[in-house]
Amino acid sequence: MSDRQLTHRTPVAVLGLGPMGRALAATLISAGTPTTVWNRTPERAGPLVALGATAAPTVTGAVRAAPVVITCLRDPAAVDAVLAAHDDWAGRTLVDVTTGRPDEARALADWAAGQRVDLVKGAILTPTPTIGTPAATALWCGSRSGFDAVRSVLAAFGGTPGYLGPDPGAAAAYDMALLDLFGTAVSGLTHAFALASAEGIAPRSFARYAAGIAPMLAEMTARFADQLTEDRFPGDRSTVASAGAGLGHVIATTDAHGIDSGVLRAARSVVEQAIAAGHGDDGLARLARSLAPARPA
Amino acid sequence: MSDRQLTHRTPVAVLGLGPMGRALAATLISAGTPTTVWNRTPERAGPLVALGATAAPTVTGAVRAAPVVITCLRDPAAVDAVLAAHDDWAGRTLVDVTTGRPDEARALADWAAGQRVDLVKGAILTPTPTIGTPAATALWCGSRSGFDAVRSVLAAFGGTPGYLGPDPGAAAAYDMALLDLFGTAVSGLTHAFALASAEGIAPRSFARYAAGIAPMLAEMTARFADQLTEDRFPGDRSTVASAGAGLGHVIATTDAHGIDSGVLRAARSVVEQAIAAGHGDDGLARLARSLAPARPA
Ligand SMILES: NC(=O)c1ccc[n+]([C@@H]2O[C@H](COP(=O)([O-])OP(=O)(O)OC[C@H]3O[C@@H](n4cnc5c(N)ncnc54)[C@H](OP(=O)(O)O)[C@@H]3O)[C@@H](O)[C@H]2O)c1
Ligand SMILES: NC(=O)c1ccc[n+]([C@@H]2O[C@H](COP(=O)([O-])OP(=O)(O)OC[C@H]3O[C@@H](n4cnc5c(N)ncnc54)[C@H](OP(=O)(O)O)[C@@H]3O)[C@@H](O)[C@H]2O)c1
Repeated sequence: MSDRQLTHRTPVAVLGLGPMGRALAATLISAGTPTTVWNRTPERAGPLVALGATAAPTVTGAVRAAPVVITCLRDPAAVDAVLAAHDDWAGRTLVDVTTGRPDEARALADWAAGQRVDLVKGAILTPTPTIGTPAATALWCGSRSGFDAVRSVLAAFGGTPGYLGPDPGAAAAYDMALLDLFGTAVSGLTHAFALASAEGIAPRSFARYAAGIAPMLAEMTARFADQLTEDRFPGDRSTVASAGAGLGHVIATTDAHGIDSGVLRAARSVVEQAIAAGHGDDGLARLARSLAPARPA
Repeated sequence: MSDRQLTHRTPVAVLGLGPMGRALAATLISAGTPTTVWNRTPERAGPLVALGATAAPTVTGAVRAAPVVITCLRDPAAVDAVLAAHDDWAGRTLVDVTTGRPDEARALADWAAGQRVDLVKGAILTPTPTIGTPAATALWCGSRSGFDAVRSVLAAFGGTPGYLGPDPGAAAAYDMALLDLFGTAVSGLTHAFALASAEGIAPRSFARYAAGIAPMLAEMTARFADQLTEDRFPGDRSTVASAGAGLGHVIATTDAHGIDSGVLRAARSVVEQAIAAGHGDDGLARLARSLAPARPA
């Protein structure tokens, strides 16, 4: 399939109808793409059928209906289970947007090579409401010919599809680091709501001030990147030691309310290691350097 | 002092010249306020003296020079040490902006009442570069008469000084929840840079995509507040179980690089408890509810 540019009229199958799979399928249907959907729990296909999708009763039915197959499942183990449910994949372009590790993406590419499947591996970086809008961001890698063939299909999802290169693990590598930040931030946000609530602060009162943290995160993201590039960690705004003292107060307050303080304690342990290594007066970006594994000599 | 409104011409003493104390003192000097500074390590006063401050050699010298004393120190223990270095505080308005727990702020208020000191307790929520600009945000509480007296002094720091009420622990309560989110986000950001680096991704390449996380945090902050207020946790965009799977991939990738995964493991443990309690298909805001301590029956 990879020698021609497909259009939005080329049939596409979407396997996996969680929130993201549903968003992708709905966008394809809106774009006029003949869309076949399959999900392990078949009932989830209902609303998409109402929008114009065809529900396939089996994976085989879905794969036979379309030269381009998108897998959007919980994890790579689920992808393996779904791929094993059909035997002749030859000639298909497989677009896998399931979150997983770089090594898992490379293993999938090995499978694809053995099956004469063109694998385009993607990582979707923005939440479901962005899909089909310019705010969507996704990173793509793997087969260059496959990416070129499905570019117009991917364009329907919004944003400008970016191609990182042929390494099938490249998108997952970015995704891991982004999910690291995202998952930790969600953990901090939900913990902060719990702590505020224990202190008698209503969620919306807390959110009014917490809204100020997001712009600080944006500013720190750019500034820390500069400092890590230049290997300079000035402590002129705020220091590792000061952050450690702050975490200590939050841990004590959390413990006094009987709320789990595991994340905060683990964060403080990283700060304490940096202080023990003599970096207490450095800026916070130094923590990224302290976390990096020691290089073999 | 509290029966009159002070002006920007009223002398102010700043005790503690870390990054924040220096920013506060420099702003007062710019506003034309006669400013006396003191720091445990006296050398730090140099640049402020060059701007026009008077350096006091002792705490007593600083306190005698000004009816309004600002303490901006590492932690409440440092405040106690500095307060103990002078014996006659009667009649002063003490503005303490040192980060600490609500119960520590209340203990400081007890000390102040015994010394005939008007205590205004503050929490500065924005970083040093915002001080003296409209972007500064601080919360104030404690003595109402003290707050009214120093309002014009506080106004020099930027933003609109907001008063939460007489409970001297009120500002610290907000501050704890905000520091919880901030500290955890910094931990996630620095860990993500370390992981990206281990995956061969340069800091600025990572930052280009990581810039998208801050607006997601802003959106989640407002949405989670609404969901917690309404006690509804729809899993239509993304679920607790899906977040748990994502954390699992990041932990495995982190471990493969020999990077500390303590924060991520602690975050996943909270997610796993929510899944075990039957909330895997709920939205992420549910995690705040799961973290809340069980109410006594
Ligand atoms: N939601 C987002 O905002 C977002 C953003 C970026 C990336 N992603 C990624 O997109 C992928 C899908 O996420 P999602 O939010 O749509 O939902 P999800 O909850 O992560 O995945 C649900 C889908 O996986 C299927 N599934 C799970 N185990 C399976 C198995 N063993 N065999 C077959 N199917 C299986 C489910 O089928 P059943 O319906 O039968 O359970 C459902 O279709 C994930 O990798 C996620 O990380 C999501
Ligand atoms: N920096 C920010 O962006 C920021 C933002 C909001 C709130 N804050 C809060 O503002 C306060 C000050 O923070 P900072 O960033 O300026 O620096 P910091 O590193 O937290 O505190 C440094 C100051 O504390 C003094 N100190 C520490 N232990 C002492 C002791 N036992 N006796 C006397 N002095 C002692 C230091 O004196 P030496 O110079 O002699 O060590 C220095 O003046 C903290 O509570 C912080 O949480 C800071």
